[in-house]
Amino acid sequence: MREFILYSGKGRTSPDFSLKDMTGSGGRMDLNARCVISALWLSQDIRRDSRIIISLNGPPDPPLAISFSGGELKRVSPDERNIGIWLRKTLGERGLLKEDEWLETSDGIKMARKSFRELLEEQRGRNLYMLREDGEDIRKAEMGKDPVFLLGDHIGLPEEVAETALESGAKKIGLGRKSYFSSQSITLVHNELDRRSKDE
Amino acid sequence: MREFILYSGKGRTSPDFSLKDMTGSGGRMDLNARCVISALWLSQDIRRDSRIIISLNGPPDPPLAISFSGGELKRVSPDERNIGIWLRKTLGERGLLKEDEWLETSDGIKMARKSFRELLEEQRGRNLYMLREDGEDIRKAEMGKDPVFLLGDHIGLPEEVAETALESGAKKIGLGRKSYFSSQSITLVHNELDRRSKDE
Repeated sequence: MREFILYSGKGRTSPDFSLKDMTGSGGRMDLNARCVISALWLSQDIRRDSRIIISLNGPPDPPLAISFSGGELKRVSPDERNIGIWLRKTLGERGLLKEDEWLETSDGIKMARKSFRELLEEQRGRNLYMLREDGEDIRKAEMGKDPVFLLGDHIGLPEEVAETALESGAKKIGLGRKSYFSSQSITLVHNELDRRSKDE
Repeated sequence: MREFILYSGKGRTSPDFSLKDMTGSGGRMDLNARCVISALWLSQDIRRDSRIIISLNGPPDPPLAISFSGGELKRVSPDERNIGIWLRKTLGERGLLKEDEWLETSDGIKMARKSFRELLEEQRGRNLYMLREDGEDIRKAEMGKDPVFLLGDHIGLPEEVAETALESGAKKIGLGRKSYFSSQSITLVHNELDRRSKDE
């Protein structure tokens, strides 16, 4: 199992954003959608062993977390607009959330009223890796079983969030000499793990 | 300079596709748009040394080629919908095309009435690489200066197109053990070249 947790600083926490302006009104929902695509799809295939959680911290109702699981997803297409539609649909059901519980709103899509810190606590004991430009090169780094990768949006992880991650035992991992989009970073992580895994 | 030439088998060759259905009515314009994003953008930066040409072969008026150059692009945002808007705007001006000439329709965006084969002929003498699952691993392959990468859409390069590319001297390059989206493949190519280049 591979997991990605994306911190979205301004990601809208209600369904009142426009599909014509996912960037602005959605607080970079376009970026979040592209991360879902990178995390869960291959050419002609879906990554059944992968999950991505988006930690939404924008107005009006933060924090919320929405997860997409490759193994259970149905009827979702790997394009920005379609994933935007599913994000809106999911956010429209946040009134049904009970404290601390994940609610499955559609096949493979869950939502919870959890902060990034709480999402980290759920991962206690797992192999955590934080994507950072000053981290150890992923091509050389040792990587444990069932890794969880933490990454930020275009602004990056806020410092206090990064510190919490490091306190939780996350190791810093880098992807080379440039600073990549979050979705591109996910692709690079997957490729490295694909190359290492012999049994899939 | 890095160049990518994407063969889009069904990419619409008129502006009458819907931004709400770039996948269907646009003949996978969503995929084409994501390739433009991968080819030209970094986090907080644009790749001034990169260009992507989309070879559109869908109805009603093929073939057409549209190129986006990172060094000259203005007012284009790295999200699917925005690039879809620019693709439509560009296609709307195809009546102005003169045989065999590239027309700059906006800053950094050009269009020409050229087939994939003609696009290849323009690249004569350059280092051509065709992305193929059975190619030499990009991490081990020697790579010449100013490379040009040829890739297909979700269907892949038609066999006769691939043969033309091989006859033009293209080398087959692979990206690992899985079959990736075209946009993901571009990200993986860039990362490898970023790691090799010392002087940027």
